[in-house]
Amino acid sequence: MGQTLTEKILDDHLVEGDLEPGEEIGIEIDQVLAQDTTGTMVWLQFEALELDEVQTELAAQYCDHQTYQFDFKNTDDHRFLRSAAGTYGAYFSRPGNGICHNVHKENFAAPGKTLLGSDSHTPTPGGLGQLAIGAGGLDISVAMGGGAYFVEMPEVVNVRLEGELPEWSSAKDVILEMLRRLSVKGGVGKVFEYTGPGVETLSVPERTTITNMGTELGATSSIFPTDEKTRDYLARQGREDEYVELSPDEDAEYADEVVIDLSEIEPLVAKPSMPDNVVPVREVAGESVEQVIVGSCTNGGYEDILPAAKMLEGREVDMKTEMIVAPGSKQASEILSRQGWTAEMMAAGVNFSEATCGACIGIGHVPSSDSVSVRTFNRNFEGRSGIEDDSVFLASPEVAAAAAIKGELVDPRDLADELGDLEAPGVELPEKYDGSKTDIIEPEEAVDDGLVKGPNIGSAPIGEPLEADIEGEVLLKMEDNITTDHIIPATSDILKYRSNIEKLSEFTLSRVDDTFAQRALDADGGVLVAGENYGQGSSREHAAMCPQYLGIEAVLAQSFARIHKANLFNFGIVPLAIDEETYERIDQGDDVEIVTDVAEAVAAGETEFTIRVNGDWEATAELDASERERGILEAGGKLRLTKEQYADEGSSGATPADD
Amino acid sequence: MGQTLTEKILDDHLVEGDLEPGEEIGIEIDQVLAQDTTGTMVWLQFEALELDEVQTELAAQYCDHQTYQFDFKNTDDHRFLRSAAGTYGAYFSRPGNGICHNVHKENFAAPGKTLLGSDSHTPTPGGLGQLAIGAGGLDISVAMGGGAYFVEMPEVVNVRLEGELPEWSSAKDVILEMLRRLSVKGGVGKVFEYTGPGVETLSVPERTTITNMGTELGATSSIFPTDEKTRDYLARQGREDEYVELSPDEDAEYADEVVIDLSEIEPLVAKPSMPDNVVPVREVAGESVEQVIVGSCTNGGYEDILPAAKMLEGREVDMKTEMIVAPGSKQASEILSRQGWTAEMMAAGVNFSEATCGACIGIGHVPSSDSVSVRTFNRNFEGRSGIEDDSVFLASPEVAAAAAIKGELVDPRDLADELGDLEAPGVELPEKYDGSKTDIIEPEEAVDDGLVKGPNIGSAPIGEPLEADIEGEVLLKMEDNITTDHIIPATSDILKYRSNIEKLSEFTLSRVDDTFAQRALDADGGVLVAGENYGQGSSREHAAMCPQYLGIEAVLAQSFARIHKANLFNFGIVPLAIDEETYERIDQGDDVEIVTDVAEAVAAGETEFTIRVNGDWEATAELDASERERGILEAGGKLRLTKEQYADEGSSGATPADD
Repeated sequence: MGQTLTEKILDDHLVEGDLEPGEEIGIEIDQVLAQDTTGTMVWLQFEALELDEVQTELAAQYCDHQTYQFDFKNTDDHRFLRSAAGTYGAYFSRPGNGICHNVHKENFAAPGKTLLGSDSHTPTPGGLGQLAIGAGGLDISVAMGGGAYFVEMPEVVNVRLEGELPEWSSAKDVILEMLRRLSVKGGVGKVFEYTGPGVETLSVPERTTITNMGTELGATSSIFPTDEKTRDYLARQGREDEYVELSPDEDAEYADEVVIDLSEIEPLVAKPSMPDNVVPVREVAGESVEQVIVGSCTNGGYEDILPAAKMLEGREVDMKTEMIVAPGSKQASEILSRQGWTAEMMAAGVNFSEATCGACIGIGHVPSSDSVSVRTFNRNFEGRSGIEDDSVFLASPEVAAAAAIKGELVDPRDLADELGDLEAPGVELPEKYDGSKTDIIEPEEAVDDGLVKGPNIGSAPIGEPLEADIEGEVLLKMEDNITTDHIIPATSDILKYRSNIEKLSEFTLSRVDDTFAQRALDADGGVLVAGENYGQGSSREHAAMCPQYLGIEAVLAQSFARIHKANLFNFGIVPLAIDEETYERIDQGDDVEIVTDVAEAVAAGETEFTIRVNGDWEATAELDASERERGILEAGGKLRLTKEQYADEGSSGATPADD
Repeated sequence: MGQTLTEKILDDHLVEGDLEPGEEIGIEIDQVLAQDTTGTMVWLQFEALELDEVQTELAAQYCDHQTYQFDFKNTDDHRFLRSAAGTYGAYFSRPGNGICHNVHKENFAAPGKTLLGSDSHTPTPGGLGQLAIGAGGLDISVAMGGGAYFVEMPEVVNVRLEGELPEWSSAKDVILEMLRRLSVKGGVGKVFEYTGPGVETLSVPERTTITNMGTELGATSSIFPTDEKTRDYLARQGREDEYVELSPDEDAEYADEVVIDLSEIEPLVAKPSMPDNVVPVREVAGESVEQVIVGSCTNGGYEDILPAAKMLEGREVDMKTEMIVAPGSKQASEILSRQGWTAEMMAAGVNFSEATCGACIGIGHVPSSDSVSVRTFNRNFEGRSGIEDDSVFLASPEVAAAAAIKGELVDPRDLADELGDLEAPGVELPEKYDGSKTDIIEPEEAVDDGLVKGPNIGSAPIGEPLEADIEGEVLLKMEDNITTDHIIPATSDILKYRSNIEKLSEFTLSRVDDTFAQRALDADGGVLVAGENYGQGSSREHAAMCPQYLGIEAVLAQSFARIHKANLFNFGIVPLAIDEETYERIDQGDDVEIVTDVAEAVAAGETEFTIRVNGDWEATAELDASERERGILEAGGKLRLTKEQYADEGSSGATPADD
């Protein structure tokens, strides 16, 4: 039986397990990336592992979320990241150089390699045939130490592209169409592999728009085969030698198939406030627009901004509309500027920003109240723009520019009819991506002599080995669907403490009960109780790290969100499933005791644990954990376990995964 | 006896009083400007006056401080300002179009006209022969209503320029030399009038760097005569018809004279943390620099950035140094971009920002802890950069660029020697300032139908008439040189409440004592005690409005900064001067009573007020106030007084000042 492209790359990197969907596999990681809001903890954990040097082929640290540096803590974080990259042997991309996914694509993404990144849009270079996966920071630290990355073997879905995109339709519309059909949950546990005759009609930047936003489908990753377009892109980036021809076997078997006829794709938008709330632009035409932003890792490339610039040339942004262009990278900025397009956009009324994630995560250019913002970004979750009850539409650069010109949502085809002289800009790559590399500091150019920590930068806490007894107060009883935003909010006033677990912990579950953190510290241990789907939302590991820091030993919930459950293991907190009756019976303030010797039972593979409440009544709680996960729990978390493993191996550095 | 240029312009605009230094005069205002952090209150007060239309020849509303819009309140403010400008007949400059002083200079500044602006650097267009004065927002509102602006007739000081600047020395060094000689208090009550053969050697942009930063001398304004350089500048801006030849009479008499031989000026810096802490760069050479920023209203023009760009061409910013260029206007950005300089700077490692005041007021690009930042700005007050204990050096673009290349402070002459191929960039104007005007919305293009207020935008509070008794606790005793940044910090987390006085007041004097605001509210009245130069710094009227809102009835200080003292009158707070002995004797927590009937004494023109402290000892405090200022105090502030006056006049609109 033939292999899919995904299977081929996984096979090449497999160090544990079998490629059976649903089975846990361990793979070797070739490249890692981190950005500034997750990166500080990545390096603090790497420091805690007491390793000397990055073991992956390549590690790259970017500064992209907090480039405005609104607080000295942001600037200190950037300096720390530079020092960490230099100390341990990673590339460092200076603030202002652009978004991790864009800069990585331009400089490092390589067909056939594995990439692990502490950002959910890490799959972007899938458009170049790289198998790229987003993960928690600790997984990145361990991978950098040479450890394998463990993930459930995904199902591979064939997305067969046919035909060719018509004028005014774009790659963004392709992924919006995928979201319209499959929903934001449609990709969970899956890799989308793009195939078919439509592939060769798409340039690499178009492909990466699609793979980038595959994340919104919930997919583990998305990937394209490589071809002459890939070679050509790498050549224009001065990296033709990194080209590798990659494709699935002709008889590859896929778990499922989606067919998209590109010729039928029309300009779409995702309406507020979910990326899968997709309709044709014409359905919402006439909606007044106060703000338009072109940029982000999805549509912030040269090839994304150029169409908007062409549309704006000689025209003006509507007077009631503010238009901001925030390039995804300085490479894009520099080339657009050199070619005169930046001046054209400015002349049209565009506020041209530095390269940053910025507004996409609610940092800067927050929409005004009760107003519509049209953005070329990948997410429009309610409140993400920085204001509650926002009204953010996701669209292609063409649709965004049309909205800026007209001051309202309009299908660009209709605007072209109306204006008479508006031509479809198409997709155009620069002859050569000749931006400078000044902002990338290579490992051998390191400027710092060791780690440079500002006063807000602490250390990664290391857990204690699991003990025989778990007994404590139910410090908080929560409802269903508690998100990681409830556990550790990501607003900018709190985000700046990401490098300081002691301080950050003060905000733990504050949105549920702002006395919790202090009570937990005072209680010196205890448990949490929750309903269904505890820990849904982002992958942020701080949502497990902070409860660990506060002394939480177990979470008893009716069910757990997948990534958060993995994070609970990673930080040595025992996730126990309870039934509805037990949930109803337990009250906040009750005393809960696990009757058996917990350390022994976890090691022995026990799945059922008896809990005694108030010394009065008993119930059964279940532990669903693999052998690997049990090992992590016993050790007191993945950081301690990995540290011990590396110490046992007696190496000064780390041991590559395939040793 | 001949007249100085200042006297000539004042004479042309005089509506009350005589041109005797120290006497209060009322002058007609031709133009007004407001920016976004002061402008909302300007318009809310204009609204409170119940006027229909701006009465000055020209009013212009800029959005420059909060262009990052990191909170919806900023974006709402911008929308409100656009709606107010449209409703009442002002020009509106969109966010991203640049800093008020730069954009005003480019588009509206006119020789011989008076300009009143709600920003302390309003004197900038003095370089074009405009008499421009910074004032509180309320003065702007009243001037826009057609009311005269009242100010103490300043002394006019002749600054005689001789010779010509040598290579590597710049206009910034001239004003730094003035600060070195005269100190930040050296200009209080004065207008600096630049004369002599050196004037014609300076271009208009160089002149405006000097007049802009004359504010740091404490001056009421600074002004240059006009000449062929002025005509040429206006012609390049497409406004030659606005040229007027202006000069002082040959026999003009000045209160004082300062002679500066330009040929002896060398590259200077102001060391942390005061603009007059000036030394030659060579004295501090070798100091490691982590951040360099070129921009601001002082040195953010095309002519300021170009020298830095030329120096950076083909070179790289030191790897440990971050360099940000934030142009003063989109005109500058657009031209630099069109000419390819922006791309060159990016290639050298510059993070090229949108046009914004930004970092100058601590919004964005806050330095990292324990690090040196070199900035081409005008102020380096401690903490202004956004981090306490900062270390900000003020310098010319040439010195800043040299620091970026070398990674440490260096005299650019020495760097040129070291590098061999670094040429002095000189000053160069573009053939034509051909930036677009898209971002200026003219009054007749108004896009809003009435005022648009977001939920954070309140109304202007109106004070209560002065009462007979003032008695209360000394709620805070402060040192010398308390700035308006101490009184109402301008950091972004606080600035966003500028349109919401109730909320903003919570931060009053929090940098001195964060319990103050609550204590003041609890005390329901009280007084402040301060040393010399209380209220120096910006013109922000919120520094008087918030204490008024908290119930402060009087400030006892050894001396007051000019604009802040006017603001205290305007908001009904009695500013009383005390001598050093009294200052030393009074303690925080003391009870202070003004022995006489205050309302009566103020009305009667009394200048000496007996204060009784703790019912125990007495001292004399002086009220230096004109009849007009006394009238304002009695009424409970200027807003109430003006409103009553306009109501009495029964006019639906305002009464022009010369009625």
